[in-house]
Formats: sequence, C-alpha cells, structure tokens
Amino acid sequence: MERILSKKNDRVKKWKKLHTKKGRDLSGLYLIEGFHLIAEAMEHDISIQEFLISERLNDETIEQYPQEKVVIISKEIADYLSDTESPQGVFAVIEKEIPVKPTSFTKPYLLLDNVQDPGNVGTMIRTADAAGYGGVVLGKGTVDLYNSKVLRSTQGGHFHFPVYEDDLFKWFTDFKSNGFPIYGTELNEDAASYREIKAPEVYGLVMGNEGKGMDKELLKQTTKNLYIPITGQAESLNVAVAAGILMFSL
Amino acid sequence: MERILSKKNDRVKKWKKLHTKKGRDLSGLYLIEGFHLIAEAMEHDISIQEFLISERLNDETIEQYPQEKVVIISKEIADYLSDTESPQGVFAVIEKEIPVKPTSFTKPYLLLDNVQDPGNVGTMIRTADAAGYGGVVLGKGTVDLYNSKVLRSTQGGHFHFPVYEDDLFKWFTDFKSNGFPIYGTELNEDAASYREIKAPEVYGLVMGNEGKGMDKELLKQTTKNLYIPITGQAESLNVAVAAGILMFSL
Repeated sequence: MERILSKKNDRVKKWKKLHTKKGRDLSGLYLIEGFHLIAEAMEHDISIQEFLISERLNDETIEQYPQEKVVIISKEIADYLSDTESPQGVFAVIEKEIPVKPTSFTKPYLLLDNVQDPGNVGTMIRTADAAGYGGVVLGKGTVDLYNSKVLRSTQGGHFHFPVYEDDLFKWFTDFKSNGFPIYGTELNEDAASYREIKAPEVYGLVMGNEGKGMDKELLKQTTKNLYIPITGQAESLNVAVAAGILMFSL
Repeated sequence: MERILSKKNDRVKKWKKLHTKKGRDLSGLYLIEGFHLIAEAMEHDISIQEFLISERLNDETIEQYPQEKVVIISKEIADYLSDTESPQGVFAVIEKEIPVKPTSFTKPYLLLDNVQDPGNVGTMIRTADAAGYGGVVLGKGTVDLYNSKVLRSTQGGHFHFPVYEDDLFKWFTDFKSNGFPIYGTELNEDAASYREIKAPEVYGLVMGNEGKGMDKELLKQTTKNLYIPITGQAESLNVAVAAGILMFSL
C-alpha cells in the first residue's frame, strides 16, 4: 500500500487537476469523493484506477477497498482534494466512459442545450432516470458530467444510466429521420401547452439555458415547442422543476 | 446621505447579524442583496428601512434609491456583508412581515415539514406561486424564509406570494374541519399514485425532509398519502422536482 503525505507530490498535482474540465479531458480520468458515490461505483462494476484514503480513517474502513489500488494520503492532501465542506477523506480515480450512441431508440431522451448550473444538470439526470427515459444528452455549453457538483446531484446515477456528450443537431436528425418528434421548450406564438400533447413512446425533449432559453438555431429544428401554463405571478419555473413536470406528464 | 466606511462600526455589526436566524428574530429585520431583489421589493411597495450602497457604484445608480434612506458603505463593508461570490454592492434592510393566516381557503396550499435545503425551499415557493397555489407554510425544522439562499431562489416571490411560518398540525385541523383533504407524500402500503387522485379545488400538500421524509405524527393525520411511480433505477426524486410534478398534476 502506497503512502503519499506531501501536497507537493506530482501525483497530488495530477489528482487536483481532475477538478478542471481541461484536466479531465487531457487525462481521460475523473475524481469522485465520499463513501456513497464510491460504493455506487463499486456496485456497478466501474473500473476504478485508484482509491485515495486519508490516513485519519481506521484500518477497517481502509480494508473495504481492494488493497493493491489503495493510496494512503495525509489529511492535508484530503482537504486539498476535497470539494465539500466536511471532507470524508475518501476519493476514487475513475476512467471516463462516455456511452456509445444507440443505433435505435425505444424510449424518450432528454437533450440539454447550454444548461449551466451543475445542480440543475445533476437533478435532471436523476429525474430522467426515475422517469424511465433512455438517457440524457449534454449538448454544447452544458456543464460536463464529471463536474463534482453534477456528480453529487446525480448521486451516482450515471453509473447505470446513459449520459452522452454530443452535438444536439445530430440527435435531432436521427430522431426526426425515424419519425420521432423533438419537443422544444419555449413560450412563443406557435407553442402548445404540454397538457394538450399526446407524446408517442419515443421523442426528444430539449431544455435550454436557465436565462436565455434554447438556442435559436435548435429551436428552428424542433417538431413542436411546449410551454407550462403559469397561473400565478411567478415569471418562470426552475429548469429542473420544469423538466420534471414535462418528463412525468408527456 | 450617511457614509459608513469602517467595518468596526456598530451598524455594520447589526447588519451582519441579519445573516443569522437569531439576529433576524431579535431585530425583526432581514437583509436582501442585489439589484434584482431590491427592484422587486420596491415594485411591491415593501417598506424598506435602509439602502446600503457601495461607494464604488456611480452616482446615477445611487440616485435611483430614495436618498434619505441611502447609507453609503465602503467596498470592504460591502464584501463583508455579501453572501455571494460576486457582490453587486447593494443591500436593503427590510422589516419582516409574516402574512396573517387566511380565515377561509379557496386554493391549494403547500406545507413544508422539516425541509432543510434553502435552494429546495426557495424553488418550491417559486413553483407554488407559478402553479397558482394560495401560499406556502414553512413548518417545524424548515429553513426560514429570510435565509439569503432561500431569498435568492424565490427571486423575490415572497413580496407578492404569501409564505407563512406556523405549526402544520394547526393547518391540518383547519383544512380537515372544512372538509379539505391533506395529501402527505410517502411511499407506503396505503399510498396512492398521484395519477389516480382527483384533487378538489382546495387541499394541503405536504412535502417532507430530504432524507427522512415526513414526520411520523404528521403522517398519521393526513387524509391520503401520495407517491410518484418511479420506472427507472433512480432511488428517489429531488424534493423540489417531486413537489413540482405534484403541484402541476393534482
């Protein structure tokens, strides 16, 4: 079992870089933190490269993990690598595995265009999974799946539920060429209330940016645009709440 | 126009205390931050005691506010009072005004039992407003309305939409004695899928704690308990998403 106790160690620097998208893209790796997420990864047979465990944790805890992959780290390093207010002192380094796009569709898919809040994206992934969707596609401008806050809000859902990173235009073409509708979300003259729509078994549902809504070019290519009728004085709904209402109603 | 430039000034200490529930309870005041929230308060005729404005802002900005109530503060004080990563340098001190409980009900109400995440509470207030609910009641253990993160997620909704702080048992009694149902949310043997329920015009919908769900004693007193059928592998929904689905479907 290796021990790394200095923050200046090169390996520590490499791990720290996994907090940035650039660092993750260059290495093809990402970092997860906390007992629950690591347990989820192990349960779903995800190939974990290394377990980083604080020397402050007891032997019993350390023995739960495959010993040949455990690196003991100092409390100082654990605090340095942590992204939470009360670090649990356990991390895992995992290879990114973006799922391959399906060749045929049997379920609806959620497509996210430029959604920037990590909590919203994570919550929408979790909701799409609960609603029995086939997967979620993170389009241009959307925060990446391996952002630590996204991982925290999905609660490990991506270990069993497909999350793609791709150009939404390509998915639009694939859906529409198979006769499946793409529902945009915008309140405009031609938009329909989601309550009036009888959705088929397969469709794409697009949610846009929190402030600006959907990209104009994408909007032009949708089959239909939906809105949620607001009866009170609130100006709008949170994007994750709106997505939840649509996914459970359509 | 007053100027306060030292962080050690007693007034600054009093303002800073408004970030804690105790400080707000003792003074009956709360603090809001940012141009948008302050504009919302002014638009809804809320009585504002003081406007605190950073000396870094230009005269034109300062002139927008009633001059006799403006206190110019140093950048240092503005940063000290701010609860955000990029402070805008404007704050307002407002008297707490808890609305009086209605004597009769004509709309549904959302009742929150021990909901602890400020973002969730704020989002649910905003959603209840959008769904045309009569108001939201914050019960025991629920984070208070004047928490700065709650205020940020409601986006000023509480300036026009009633948010109560009260004992939920009392509301249960009032609803039930008028023949209006109280819907709890828990998955148990007697629970019904929300899709099977035809709700009347007036009812109470209770959402419980993020991890532990609803209080057992409250659960005993509900008319019916509802659940949202989950078809995927996700274990649960975020409480604000679940509330949104229920409020827009019932």
